[in-house]
Amino acid sequence: MFPAAPMAGYDRAITIFSPEGRLYQVEYAFEAVKRGMTALGVKAVDGVVLAVEKRSASPLVEGTEKIKKIDSHVGVAFAGLFGDARVLIDQARIYAQSHRLVYGEPIPIELLVKRICDIKQVYTQHGGVRPFGVAFLFAGVDRKGPHLIQTDPGGTYLRCKARAIGAGAQKALDLFVKEYHDDIKIEEATLLALRGLKEAMEDGFTPENIELARIDVYTKEFKIFSTEELAKLFEKLR
Amino acid sequence: MFPAAPMAGYDRAITIFSPEGRLYQVEYAFEAVKRGMTALGVKAVDGVVLAVEKRSASPLVEGTEKIKKIDSHVGVAFAGLFGDARVLIDQARIYAQSHRLVYGEPIPIELLVKRICDIKQVYTQHGGVRPFGVAFLFAGVDRKGPHLIQTDPGGTYLRCKARAIGAGAQKALDLFVKEYHDDIKIEEATLLALRGLKEAMEDGFTPENIELARIDVYTKEFKIFSTEELAKLFEKLR
Amino acid sequence: MFPAAPMAGYDRAITIFSPEGRLYQVEYAFEAVKRGMTALGVKAVDGVVLAVEKRSASPLVEGTEKIKKIDSHVGVAFAGLFGDARVLIDQARIYAQSHRLVYGEPIPIELLVKRICDIKQVYTQHGGVRPFGVAFLFAGVDRKGPHLIQTDPGGTYLRCKARAIGAGAQKALDLFVKEYHDDIKIEEATLLALRGLKEAMEDGFTPENIELARIDVYTKEFKIFSTEELAKLFEKLR
Amino acid sequence: MFPAAPMAGYDRAITIFSPEGRLYQVEYAFEAVKRGMTALGVKAVDGVVLAVEKRSASPLVEGTEKIKKIDSHVGVAFAGLFGDARVLIDQARIYAQSHRLVYGEPIPIELLVKRICDIKQVYTQHGGVRPFGVAFLFAGVDRKGPHLIQTDPGGTYLRCKARAIGAGAQKALDLFVKEYHDDIKIEEATLLALRGLKEAMEDGFTPENIELARIDVYTKEFKIFSTEELAKLFEKLR
Amino acid sequence: MFPAAPMAGYDRAITIFSPEGRLYQVEYAFEAVKRGMTALGVKAVDGVVLAVEKRSASPLVEGTEKIKKIDSHVGVAFAGLFGDARVLIDQARIYAQSHRLVYGEPIPIELLVKRICDIKQVYTQHGGVRPFGVAFLFAGVDRKGPHLIQTDPGGTYLRCKARAIGAGAQKALDLFVKEYHDDIKIEEATLLALRGLKEAMEDGFTPENIELARIDVYTKEFKIFSTEELAKLFEKLR
Amino acid sequence: MFPAAPMAGYDRAITIFSPEGRLYQVEYAFEAVKRGMTALGVKAVDGVVLAVEKRSASPLVEGTEKIKKIDSHVGVAFAGLFGDARVLIDQARIYAQSHRLVYGEPIPIELLVKRICDIKQVYTQHGGVRPFGVAFLFAGVDRKGPHLIQTDPGGTYLRCKARAIGAGAQKALDLFVKEYHDDIKIEEATLLALRGLKEAMEDGFTPENIELARIDVYTKEFKIFSTEELAKLFEKLR
Amino acid sequence: MFPAAPMAGYDRAITIFSPEGRLYQVEYAFEAVKRGMTALGVKAVDGVVLAVEKRSASPLVEGTEKIKKIDSHVGVAFAGLFGDARVLIDQARIYAQSHRLVYGEPIPIELLVKRICDIKQVYTQHGGVRPFGVAFLFAGVDRKGPHLIQTDPGGTYLRCKARAIGAGAQKALDLFVKEYHDDIKIEEATLLALRGLKEAMEDGFTPENIELARIDVYTKEFKIFSTEELAKLFEKLR
Repeated sequence: MFPAAPMAGYDRAITIFSPEGRLYQVEYAFEAVKRGMTALGVKAVDGVVLAVEKRSASPLVEGTEKIKKIDSHVGVAFAGLFGDARVLIDQARIYAQSHRLVYGEPIPIELLVKRICDIKQVYTQHGGVRPFGVAFLFAGVDRKGPHLIQTDPGGTYLRCKARAIGAGAQKALDLFVKEYHDDIKIEEATLLALRGLKEAMEDGFTPENIELARIDVYTKEFKIFSTEELAKLFEKLR
Repeated sequence: MFPAAPMAGYDRAITIFSPEGRLYQVEYAFEAVKRGMTALGVKAVDGVVLAVEKRSASPLVEGTEKIKKIDSHVGVAFAGLFGDARVLIDQARIYAQSHRLVYGEPIPIELLVKRICDIKQVYTQHGGVRPFGVAFLFAGVDRKGPHLIQTDPGGTYLRCKARAIGAGAQKALDLFVKEYHDDIKIEEATLLALRGLKEAMEDGFTPENIELARIDVYTKEFKIFSTEELAKLFEKLR
Repeated sequence: MFPAAPMAGYDRAITIFSPEGRLYQVEYAFEAVKRGMTALGVKAVDGVVLAVEKRSASPLVEGTEKIKKIDSHVGVAFAGLFGDARVLIDQARIYAQSHRLVYGEPIPIELLVKRICDIKQVYTQHGGVRPFGVAFLFAGVDRKGPHLIQTDPGGTYLRCKARAIGAGAQKALDLFVKEYHDDIKIEEATLLALRGLKEAMEDGFTPENIELARIDVYTKEFKIFSTEELAKLFEKLR
Repeated sequence: MFPAAPMAGYDRAITIFSPEGRLYQVEYAFEAVKRGMTALGVKAVDGVVLAVEKRSASPLVEGTEKIKKIDSHVGVAFAGLFGDARVLIDQARIYAQSHRLVYGEPIPIELLVKRICDIKQVYTQHGGVRPFGVAFLFAGVDRKGPHLIQTDPGGTYLRCKARAIGAGAQKALDLFVKEYHDDIKIEEATLLALRGLKEAMEDGFTPENIELARIDVYTKEFKIFSTEELAKLFEKLR
Repeated sequence: MFPAAPMAGYDRAITIFSPEGRLYQVEYAFEAVKRGMTALGVKAVDGVVLAVEKRSASPLVEGTEKIKKIDSHVGVAFAGLFGDARVLIDQARIYAQSHRLVYGEPIPIELLVKRICDIKQVYTQHGGVRPFGVAFLFAGVDRKGPHLIQTDPGGTYLRCKARAIGAGAQKALDLFVKEYHDDIKIEEATLLALRGLKEAMEDGFTPENIELARIDVYTKEFKIFSTEELAKLFEKLR
Repeated sequence: MFPAAPMAGYDRAITIFSPEGRLYQVEYAFEAVKRGMTALGVKAVDGVVLAVEKRSASPLVEGTEKIKKIDSHVGVAFAGLFGDARVLIDQARIYAQSHRLVYGEPIPIELLVKRICDIKQVYTQHGGVRPFGVAFLFAGVDRKGPHLIQTDPGGTYLRCKARAIGAGAQKALDLFVKEYHDDIKIEEATLLALRGLKEAMEDGFTPENIELARIDVYTKEFKIFSTEELAKLFEKLR
Repeated sequence: MFPAAPMAGYDRAITIFSPEGRLYQVEYAFEAVKRGMTALGVKAVDGVVLAVEKRSASPLVEGTEKIKKIDSHVGVAFAGLFGDARVLIDQARIYAQSHRLVYGEPIPIELLVKRICDIKQVYTQHGGVRPFGVAFLFAGVDRKGPHLIQTDPGGTYLRCKARAIGAGAQKALDLFVKEYHDDIKIEEATLLALRGLKEAMEDGFTPENIELARIDVYTKEFKIFSTEELAKLFEKLR
């Protein structure tokens, strides 16, 4: 992803463009995302699903949650640096609550994403900081319907139908390209997300080692599944 | 565009002139623009057209919009870093609204452009930041008629008749030089813009993969075309 | 843990990602933790135990306490730089008192940990500082029951069943993996913690050279044991 | 203009004198001026003329204006970085308006120039910035009569009889030295300015590719010529 | 104490951890302490004694005092940079007076030490400064009895029974390890301190070349001995 | 004046002493003074004379004035960077006016010089700036009589009887040493100053190419001579 | 005084300790003091004498005064950078006046010295500045009697009986060691100071080339001698 030997110096600070117009530090921050555990999302016509790997390095450590609720109508999954993610998620919650307070309605998903990306952009242009080493998948429902939006460390966001980030992303994406269709409904999307995660994880794909959340256009409630609920879903997988 | 081996150091910071009086970091930021997807504009006697490529890297990702409305009488297309563009576009919207509020009239296009370029200039002269890696094509109509103005990462702007930026710019410019004439009307300019974009894109030139917007002196409304409207325009192309 | 010869420069500042997306300074801060004396914790169904080595370099120096009470319902053990630990422990006490004052109830353990990790994260992303060279084991009881949570220099935290940090951590962890079970009660957990510490310390395992504290769900009081109480516990060990 | 190999480092920052007492960054900024398009001025006993080249790189781009009015009695031409020039010109306009407001009279030309040079000087002595890469020719009339004053990137200014800056400056200066005389009147000075610009431009010397402005002691109005007016002047040239 | 050739760079700033998790600048500051003249302290069951070498480089210079009273119940001896010590001692006096004012009682010794160490820690984690090149021995009596506490340049403190810092520290410590016992009374401790200092100084051990201060639990007054009083003590030594 | 090869680095910043205790950047700033055109002064028992070279590089550029009046009783000549000089001269005028306002009397010459030197000193001790590349000769009359005081880039000042700075200083000083005597009167001093300048300039010594100013104890008015007055003085020279 | 080749880098900034715990920049600042002209002081039982060399580099330059009165009861002599000295002397005068105003009594000499040293210390610990390149000899009389105190660039001070600083210091000190005795009276001390200065200066020891000041316990007035008074003293020398 990066050249074997970039001319010394162009990749040492966020305030320096390389001669090719690249920001190496932003690209390196992407590598932190690629080293993270897989997170993925599938958008259906009537909702969105997020699913993440949360395997723990040790049996005595509980896997760290990588899906967080931002507001009742929107949640997020991430891959990359845990600490960086938390800072931005806290900020997203503040934006969401503040929007409700000021405008008396849930924050539009894209507006929320934009605000988070504005913070990320600042960390790619000013000296004395590093970019955020984290990518997000925002899933939510607002007046315009369901949304699945990915943000990257550079402050760019992409509206997606189905998307995966982290170490196993490519395997999940390959499956999605083959099997995703535009009329997919939330139940089918849920199973597709699980199958994508199974592909990405190679082994250890159990209800204990993953997280899944979804939101549909009927309830408009972002719901994180319990291990028991996941176990039931797993039965449908077979 | 840049020498094979600039004397080490002159290109490492925005606060350093090279012995030839060049600002390498600004030139490198131009490279980020050149790596961006093509954006172009054509000014007619009675309006202006903007058109951009918005092909997506993946079938599951919706192409990112690269034409944005600033105010009812002015819009913008860009090539370069998405996150950088968004910061400046937000700022442009604030300038436009603030002008309406204070003076009770739409902001003159060149004044708006000047303000954005003032921000860009600051990022080429002060340490601890990098230049904005984005070029804009502003299209609008004010009392003086239609305007097509390009800005570059260094804070310079050019008033243009027809202009293209990004990866395929040269091909589109070649076409414009051949076919542009000073009496061009908005309908012809629209088709010229589309043909320029077709040249620039090489393949994948479909209504789904592009954006087009225009404003004319009659309605003075900056209008972004829907995919359906683009499909109709495509028919005229043949 | 770190490559023999990282490309010069990527490990010199916290504001630089390496090409592999790693933050070397955070990893080096972990090394400061690994050089620290062993600290460990065991969570039982009805409480949590913390135990640490506090051997002194000289017979004329009293061993430095490495277990601190934060509030009546929560305490902390640490490994790493003493001075860094104290700064964060002071902050934790302020958060805890402030929460009691504002909400009239003990601070939830995870919220407390999150605040400390927020401080740690800032020191991994902004220039002109270094990360905190200290890891914590927080032990406490709140409405959700007993908690054992580890934080690291990067601002990440892990909810644990049993955990050890510092120079002898691996030996203690090996024991825990073999002997920990989910139905463990506080008394058994206490002995397991002591045995883990004994493994980790190699020699000098005496009541004078260690500290132990525990909290159970009945009293909800974080209690640091006196040397006399430790001596009694040691008898049970045999 | 600069030595082949200045001892490494002396030319990397504005806060460093070279062992010879030179400020290389200021000298390099002069190079940016020398790369700019030619701008020149001729002072007559009864007025001042400014003329500049404004050739465009492309037939579809309108040449950028390089003569700007500051106040009714003073204007400016520049060579060098467009963005840098605009920042200082905006500032000059503010000084001029503010002087009128406070003292109820047009700002004296030299005072105006001094203020602009004060800004330029600051950018040659303090770290974290670069010098302004632009030179100005101020032309105006005040109580003391007509003025033609050049400023350079280092904050020095020179009162001139006839002067040229930018890429073709030497050729124009050669002509001026030969033909300028102290009794020159504004009409003759205008033709001398045009002839100087013709020498400097080599080719493309047409009314469309140049700008000319003048101010005389009778009207005290700084007037920028239209292309039509320039065409008439060109007839006199032959 | 430091490796012959640390990888270049890890020891150049306080904001950089070495790959082994060490802060070289803090370790180098320790060297400044080791180069200082010997200071030592002995805690008895009923008081604490401080003694320091204050030999002067020249017979015409009066030796510089290295024992300072902070408040009536606490004093301090130091080894290392004189100027750095004075800054922190001034601060300690302010903390002590401020505590008396606010709480109406003498400041607890450990709390006072903690505050000084907090200042020291800040200077080991933030850029643009260096650590304090000084170590202190605080001696005082509060409600909990007598205290002898050492602080180091990194912001760590150690509660001690007997302790020595500076150039001759090891020799004094060797004596203390052999002869210190837990039932030592203030008079015996005073003689032990003197004998330790004699060991450390090699030659020049005279009442004029040393300072001694002590505080006991009866008077709770920190008292610096005059040369005459020292002379009397010296008689007891023989 | 500076060693052929100073150990790399000691001369790169004003905040670094060389191992010999020298501030190279201050010494390099002196070089900027030495490259400047000659300025000189002669103090008589009843007044002071200043004279400077103001040759222009081009016949179309009017020579730049290098003698400035600060207040009615004091003026200044300089050698070195024009822009740097102007900043300090503006400041000197403010000090002079402010003193008149507050104390109702002309500012004492040495006090004025001290204030300017205070500014210069700051620029030799703090990072992020460079020293002022200018030396001044202040000439004035106050209650204590006539004064001729030189300031240098390091913030030092010297009270002088006769003094020269800039490129031709040595030649003028040689003359002064030979011919200056303590009973010199203002008229003789004026001729000595002119003869010194003639020595220094080598060629081009004409009334048009020089400036001269003087102040005597009778009028206490600092008076800059017109070209006509200079022409008359030149007659006396022969 | 400094090693032939300090490991590159340890001596480039005041914020870096060398591996031996030395602050090279402070040591280099001492070199600036050693290059200064000799200043010395002798304390008698009933007063203090200061004497300095003030030879001028040129017969046309009046020697610069190096003894300054701070308040009526205290004065100072210095060796090192003139500009640096002036900044601190101004500050000392402010402290002295402010003390008189607040407490209605002359400032104690040691307190005054401490304040100046506090300023000096700050310039040895914080980045972006350099240490003050000046040493002082403070001479004064307060309630405790006469004082002679030396300060160095690192912020340390020494109470002295007789002391010399600057280029000829060693020769004067050698004389003082031989001839100083504790019962010396002010008249004898004055002659000893003069003889010390004579040793230090090698040649040019005349009343015109030196300064001398003294203060005794009877008048408590710091008095700088005129050249005439010095001439009389010189007669006593023979």
